[in-house]
Amino acid sequence: MPVLVMKFGGTSVATLDRIRRAAKRVGVEVAKGYDVIVIVSAMSGKTNELVGWVNETSPLYDAREYDAVVSSGENVTAGLMALTLQEMDIPARSWQGWQVPVKTTSAHSAARIEDIPPQNITNKFREGMQVAVVAGFQGVSPEGRITTLGRGGSDTTAVAFAAAFDAERCDIYTDVDGVYTTDPRICDKARKMDRISFEEMLELASLGAKVLQTRSVELAMRYKVRLRVLSSFEEQSDEAGTLVCDEEDIMESNVVAGVAYSRDEAKMTLVSVADRPGIAAAIFTPLSEAGVNVDMIVQNISEEGRTDMTFSCPTDQVKRAEKALAAAKEKGDINFHDLVADTGVAKVSVVGIGMRSHTGVAAKMFKVLSQEGINIKVITTSEIKISVLIDRKYMELAVQSLHDAFELDKAG
Amino acid sequence: MPVLVMKFGGTSVATLDRIRRAAKRVGVEVAKGYDVIVIVSAMSGKTNELVGWVNETSPLYDAREYDAVVSSGENVTAGLMALTLQEMDIPARSWQGWQVPVKTTSAHSAARIEDIPPQNITNKFREGMQVAVVAGFQGVSPEGRITTLGRGGSDTTAVAFAAAFDAERCDIYTDVDGVYTTDPRICDKARKMDRISFEEMLELASLGAKVLQTRSVELAMRYKVRLRVLSSFEEQSDEAGTLVCDEEDIMESNVVAGVAYSRDEAKMTLVSVADRPGIAAAIFTPLSEAGVNVDMIVQNISEEGRTDMTFSCPTDQVKRAEKALAAAKEKGDINFHDLVADTGVAKVSVVGIGMRSHTGVAAKMFKVLSQEGINIKVITTSEIKISVLIDRKYMELAVQSLHDAFELDKAG
Repeated sequence: MPVLVMKFGGTSVATLDRIRRAAKRVGVEVAKGYDVIVIVSAMSGKTNELVGWVNETSPLYDAREYDAVVSSGENVTAGLMALTLQEMDIPARSWQGWQVPVKTTSAHSAARIEDIPPQNITNKFREGMQVAVVAGFQGVSPEGRITTLGRGGSDTTAVAFAAAFDAERCDIYTDVDGVYTTDPRICDKARKMDRISFEEMLELASLGAKVLQTRSVELAMRYKVRLRVLSSFEEQSDEAGTLVCDEEDIMESNVVAGVAYSRDEAKMTLVSVADRPGIAAAIFTPLSEAGVNVDMIVQNISEEGRTDMTFSCPTDQVKRAEKALAAAKEKGDINFHDLVADTGVAKVSVVGIGMRSHTGVAAKMFKVLSQEGINIKVITTSEIKISVLIDRKYMELAVQSLHDAFELDKAG
Repeated sequence: MPVLVMKFGGTSVATLDRIRRAAKRVGVEVAKGYDVIVIVSAMSGKTNELVGWVNETSPLYDAREYDAVVSSGENVTAGLMALTLQEMDIPARSWQGWQVPVKTTSAHSAARIEDIPPQNITNKFREGMQVAVVAGFQGVSPEGRITTLGRGGSDTTAVAFAAAFDAERCDIYTDVDGVYTTDPRICDKARKMDRISFEEMLELASLGAKVLQTRSVELAMRYKVRLRVLSSFEEQSDEAGTLVCDEEDIMESNVVAGVAYSRDEAKMTLVSVADRPGIAAAIFTPLSEAGVNVDMIVQNISEEGRTDMTFSCPTDQVKRAEKALAAAKEKGDINFHDLVADTGVAKVSVVGIGMRSHTGVAAKMFKVLSQEGINIKVITTSEIKISVLIDRKYMELAVQSLHDAFELDKAG
């Protein structure tokens, strides 16, 4: 029998009623003849409660104990979902990570799935079980301790199961009805896409369109898992939601697929750095060691042996970055006159695999922003994305103007 | 290093503050040089919440899923306790049932512990771990599924660990400061006992003095585990609480150790049953099959081939008993004129190993009740216990009078 993976996020299993509604969706797929693997998150709010208790108990907690505590929310939902399905006369049972087993690395709270031996679950399917309900977000380390995959990790669990069981599709049920050309909350012309390529989804996800965990998209791309994002709050057809798939499965598309933004960016400039070979490494190694996620990097032209180095990072990491750079200066590893942090910026990006073959996207983007009087502070580009850092107050305007200019309200 | 088992019930770990207080008690024992195994319950209220969800989802639930859901509360407390101890610089880690492993039967929701291989935990003690925090109430079946031991099962977990690790003592921290000669809420002369024998504790526990789960006392008796009941809400010395131990360890004791009561008893009488060999089996087999816990049984003298048969059972099982007996009558297995249920009764018992060698306890008990004008409806006796069924309205009076008459306010 073909296998289908269905994943329900926290809001989709927040109450017993919602679990029943999700179970009905599962029933529809079972009736079509699928062996279904259901991946569940914790009831919404539960994980935050557990994380709060851990933080209050031990601010610098042992991640192994954090994982043991925080993983319990998914176990509850898995059992309740299995019971709900049984009440509908659908043979089902729950599986915790260690029971499958979902083998992961020992990197507690940020573990990576290494292997999911399918035998145990496959044997149960052969014996007549129709649904395996698996607690998402968790696994077991080589030492036999419980691990978790990091926040949002249930998406990754779902894709990993789809890969391990060669599933026909991996359906991610969530509180939005698909992936949009941009955030509908700030642009009312935003349009739901029927299909989007893995590459575009990756850029959109990592740029702040938080529909799917980035790692889950990477994994889906690597194993060619057809990933569908759809709403658990609406009646669904086979065509509902957005299919994230290989670009070969997308017949036609716009040059630009979507406009993404990230509000919590800060721009930091090291003024008048002594320029010498290895200076970039001397700056960014201590930042990396301090856990600062540096995103964009721009180096000005060097004059008289000195240069300005600008980078962006999440706003809440500014303090950490300042501390790391001050320490490096103290040690004599780097030399700069001043460190200027600008926490009033945002990042806006246009994303599309069409850019590979179409020129002029960057020029058009800069022209649109210029016409609106928006000053660009930093620019970076990749093969399928152009990002700019601008004053945060212009963020909504920039997103709306770009969405209009690239005609994203019209299907490609 | 000697091993000490310490068990903290739900009220003793109900909040992060209480977990900290419990951890401090653990720290005191660690400082004395013990390797400590801490058994924790779920935070009070949590298990009831989970049980409620299961019942609402599936009234006739799959016990395997019930166990998977309900066991999660203990996992949370185990992790939080380990983190709290680590914050106090005490090397500790949490263990879930399957990690130890606590091997049980497959009787889900009422599993029995079959084996606790000590190697995994002992190895960690050798490596420098000072406290193993174990989630109580749970284990793992031969099929690799999570089991639970039934409500109050954490006491049994604690005693089983004490036996498996040959612990010096098993301390049960709870919300009372020991075992009393009777319930202090209805008799202000009730006295906390320093020591009580396993046999007496068993009778008191099963008679409704709900300090310890009955099975934990049975297990402690079989493996000669010294069991101490004490309060987690008071500063404690080595002499605190009540030691439940072998009767050989009790130097002197009263003939009667305590007065127990049970409020929710019903007396049922089958009027004019056709008396013949096998009639008792014909009555009590269907009751047993219907899950009715029959306690006392009395058969009147037979006259003209007919007799009255009286038994007691918990009040909430009366309906079930009536249904089972009506069905048996319908089938022609038994024949009776009437079935009279009296739900206004209570059971009062005096318990003491001294009764084995002292006569006259029953006579004295009956005389005391008679002097108070309390009519006895049913009597049963065992080697160390005499129980009577009386009108519920006299229950408090009976307990107080017996406590006085046997001078239980004075240590033996």
